[in-house]
Amino acid sequence: MLLGSIEAGGTKFVCAVGDGDYRIKNQTVIPTTTPAETLTATINYFKQFKLDAIGIASFGPIEIRRHADDYGFITKTPKPGWSQTDFVGPIRQALDCPVAWTTDVNGSAYGEYVMAGLTNAQLDSLVYYTIGTGVGAGAVINGQFLGAVGHPEMGHVLVKRHPDDLAFKGICPFHGDCLEGLVAGPTFEARTGRPGSEVPLTDPVWDIMSYYVAQAALQTTLTIRPDKIVFGGGVVSEGFLQKVRRDFKTLLNGYVTVPALADYLTVPLMANNGSATLGDFALAAQELKRA
Amino acid sequence: MLLGSIEAGGTKFVCAVGDGDYRIKNQTVIPTTTPAETLTATINYFKQFKLDAIGIASFGPIEIRRHADDYGFITKTPKPGWSQTDFVGPIRQALDCPVAWTTDVNGSAYGEYVMAGLTNAQLDSLVYYTIGTGVGAGAVINGQFLGAVGHPEMGHVLVKRHPDDLAFKGICPFHGDCLEGLVAGPTFEARTGRPGSEVPLTDPVWDIMSYYVAQAALQTTLTIRPDKIVFGGGVVSEGFLQKVRRDFKTLLNGYVTVPALADYLTVPLMANNGSATLGDFALAAQELKRA
Repeated sequence: MLLGSIEAGGTKFVCAVGDGDYRIKNQTVIPTTTPAETLTATINYFKQFKLDAIGIASFGPIEIRRHADDYGFITKTPKPGWSQTDFVGPIRQALDCPVAWTTDVNGSAYGEYVMAGLTNAQLDSLVYYTIGTGVGAGAVINGQFLGAVGHPEMGHVLVKRHPDDLAFKGICPFHGDCLEGLVAGPTFEARTGRPGSEVPLTDPVWDIMSYYVAQAALQTTLTIRPDKIVFGGGVVSEGFLQKVRRDFKTLLNGYVTVPALADYLTVPLMANNGSATLGDFALAAQELKRA
Repeated sequence: MLLGSIEAGGTKFVCAVGDGDYRIKNQTVIPTTTPAETLTATINYFKQFKLDAIGIASFGPIEIRRHADDYGFITKTPKPGWSQTDFVGPIRQALDCPVAWTTDVNGSAYGEYVMAGLTNAQLDSLVYYTIGTGVGAGAVINGQFLGAVGHPEMGHVLVKRHPDDLAFKGICPFHGDCLEGLVAGPTFEARTGRPGSEVPLTDPVWDIMSYYVAQAALQTTLTIRPDKIVFGGGVVSEGFLQKVRRDFKTLLNGYVTVPALADYLTVPLMANNGSATLGDFALAAQELKRA
């Protein structure tokens, strides 16, 4: 069996081919330029193989309701040239195989859900946050994605402001100081004039960051009660998550029972965002069974 | 077929018996005193009937995981005398029928989900908030409750503070200014010295309230993407929800598509919290099929 994976990001498409055990047999990276150019290069790459099914985890927003007229489209995206792009249609037509279609964070969430399930039979639900250029999250509950009328956009919730951060307006063009507006990677430049990679963890700005990310973990805990919350993306490190766990514990104040925090709020099990590729393979295999 | 319903609240147990069409055939109200006294009176009431199944929607926190040793218990509740009370055990033993067991808000959520489904075939998911003495919410997604490792506690999320309300500390004994600490009924006394029923909707305190409740709706929307969010409880009126819809629209800023707000953010379809009884009947009927 050969399965395909497209991790479709705003700067690059990570394409991979795997076998029935989800082992990667081949991979390539295609820059994200125009839809026509990028999709053509993607299709040409996969045409070298005879795929049984393919999974796509795409930047968005995207249409995920199967009965919608524009199912499989990237919809109203801020990325120039990509609004109202039919993504699934051309792929399915060219590769003639079942196509699984979900958001980038759902793909990663599913990969981490599969990985965590390899060692933890009790794990039924998992939420995956990415905190990078943007902030988003996907949730898997008993093998199903959360969000029937559309995918979650947990990156844009509002949070209680940190008392030392009240002057910062936030950088989200839609909501100002929503979660993404307060903790996305570019907030480091906006707050400190330096990229986050140059700001040491001892800098107080990281405590402001952890206060907000801990609130995201709190909202997720009190709303979804998942078994595990994974944080990926360029902003996240184990050192940062130690601060997040500290603030989460204070904010939750023992109100509900959660697993040991070192197991509950974690970095991804798969390095280098490999969880998206694994998730795509697993979703492709599922789609094949559906077909 | 005869189905039972217990809507177990902190001040009273509303008990009802219904038929297979969920029509109420008999009902009574039992004051909530000690567990022994209240459960005995409840059992004696239902023993008059030969129930096929019963549904219980209880105040909490409660243990809902079927594999847990204390499944069916009210766990660590602030209500004096009721911590670690086995609720399902005595009821099942005395009435010798299947027992469905969930939280008070889940019961109401399920009742509203059944009601809304009578006229809307597209409705797959619904969230029910109660805003009264406390604040809580339950969510139904494709007939299943959200929350595998425990029930949601959405009443205790944090929210961005209203600029005219920064001096108010909130009244939640666990978290101070969490959502419940800012919008539960007793906040009217704390903020204005008057009960909410005596504060006209033109008072600016209602705009502070609606800003917070709109954030709860926003969090729920961006996290769960439900088809409908229902608000019940003593604080809620259609006039108040008009303010909530206004603030929700501003906060969401068109970021994701939601149904028309008059259909999306609503008061309960069932008056006088009848949704809990209906939900219990429906859950009891399901439990009967499971058994």
